Amino acid sequence: MFHETFREAWALRYGAAPDFEVAGIDRFLTHRSIRKYRDEPIPEETIKGLIAAAQSAATSSNLQLWSVISVQNGERREAIAQLCGDQKQVREAAWFLAFFADHHRLRAAAAAVGESAAGLDYNEFYTMAVIDAALAAERLVCAAESLGIGICYIGALRNDPDGVRAFFGLPEGVFGVFGLCLGWPAKGVEAEIKPRLAQEAVWFRETYGPSPNVEEYDARMRPFYERQGMKGDATWSMRSGRRVDGHHMTGREVLQPWLQRQGFDRR
Amino acid sequence: MFHETFREAWALRYGAAPDFEVAGIDRFLTHRSIRKYRDEPIPEETIKGLIAAAQSAATSSNLQLWSVISVQNGERREAIAQLCGDQKQVREAAWFLAFFADHHRLRAAAAAVGESAAGLDYNEFYTMAVIDAALAAERLVCAAESLGIGICYIGALRNDPDGVRAFFGLPEGVFGVFGLCLGWPAKGVEAEIKPRLAQEAVWFRETYGPSPNVEEYDARMRPFYERQGMKGDATWSMRSGRRVDGHHMTGREVLQPWLQRQGFDRR
Repeated sequence: MFHETFREAWALRYGAAPDFEVAGIDRFLTHRSIRKYRDEPIPEETIKGLIAAAQSAATSSNLQLWSVISVQNGERREAIAQLCGDQKQVREAAWFLAFFADHHRLRAAAAAVGESAAGLDYNEFYTMAVIDAALAAERLVCAAESLGIGICYIGALRNDPDGVRAFFGLPEGVFGVFGLCLGWPAKGVEAEIKPRLAQEAVWFRETYGPSPNVEEYDARMRPFYERQGMKGDATWSMRSGRRVDGHHMTGREVLQPWLQRQGFDRR
Repeated sequence: MFHETFREAWALRYGAAPDFEVAGIDRFLTHRSIRKYRDEPIPEETIKGLIAAAQSAATSSNLQLWSVISVQNGERREAIAQLCGDQKQVREAAWFLAFFADHHRLRAAAAAVGESAAGLDYNEFYTMAVIDAALAAERLVCAAESLGIGICYIGALRNDPDGVRAFFGLPEGVFGVFGLCLGWPAKGVEAEIKPRLAQEAVWFRETYGPSPNVEEYDARMRPFYERQGMKGDATWSMRSGRRVDGHHMTGREVLQPWLQRQGFDRR
């Protein structure tokens, strides 16, 4: 797993080999979600090292507006898997980490020294905390993958925010942004590098460009969907449009009012 | 730059050497923001490779709800530096990249095949796009740092959302989340690894813990602030509380209503 060279990974992402090479960054192009793991532990010291990587990510004004909770107890792991859409990789991962946008710690620390943290109600600080959590998680992920560990993000941690709040005992000002499964990839696990949109569709120069032609991407994704056994002949555009049509929210349609009750995004 | 070992970086983050080691992840612990650069270009092919790393990050449901725009024109670089709080590293970086939460591309692609993307109005898809942009950026950053390139995130891209929209010609459904400066660190540049909160303050087990004692962190940060020439004897708790007191918003207090006008977070 994660063995492809820069040229190989590039060709899988974009459909054709590049006419150049950037030495030394192969491993950053080879990510794929891993959902089947060997029955082999990841030592706690490794996780401590990875948390140190996460804490080494940039954080706006050094506010560190994020937290992480590991769930290793067997019964609790089963329960959080249920809360996350009953995904088996949550149950089976060597470690399950939940990442949180966290205003609570700073609010408490500021109150203890007589300083206000009243501005945290602004969307700006919701956005900042989500960014902090994501930067921390992705640095941890890059470090984990460099050790050969497979990961899978779990957006379904947002499916039932009340359930997640009760499960973790969250105070006001803490929101579960996503989960993260970590485990050693199972032998023979099939997990392809997924094609992505052409660079020209994502990267513009100087100003925002005209909407790109995604038909070539739709065509490139078709054989990928077939190999993955995904039914029907819908294209990426059709599948993605349906995914965001408002009828497939899996509980997340409550997020805005829930966040406001939880102390985020109030103004 | 970025030369510290795992043990050295750990000691600088947490104030004491660890009693263990995780081999192979040193480089993920050595991040610091770099704001002074050598006058030496970063080849465009390197940036292409780094964009491929960014596109290799996880993206929820493969929706790829982010974009990036590079600003290399001299006059435009000066103008975007002004929009970002007149920070000189924006002006001087070899490359400046702006990262965007982007619903526009998917909405257009879905419309072209007769599919609705009406659900994008939900906060859920604002949050998802911000996460996508942050994961992509941080994977790019980890790859860049592994090559010895220094980076600095620019949250000030959110200071003037109307100005940024006009500067880039953004359509509805596109929001500038942060900027990113890239450049070769200047020789002799002083950029320390910054101490962070203790792991116990950020990482809980099973359930959210009681608010941590941050006094030890306040004490650890004091000599850091002195070395950085930051005036006054305010602690991290005091400085951070003031940072979020609602009186230091640098324009970002308009974010929620602005986002709603721009097509995000409407429900």
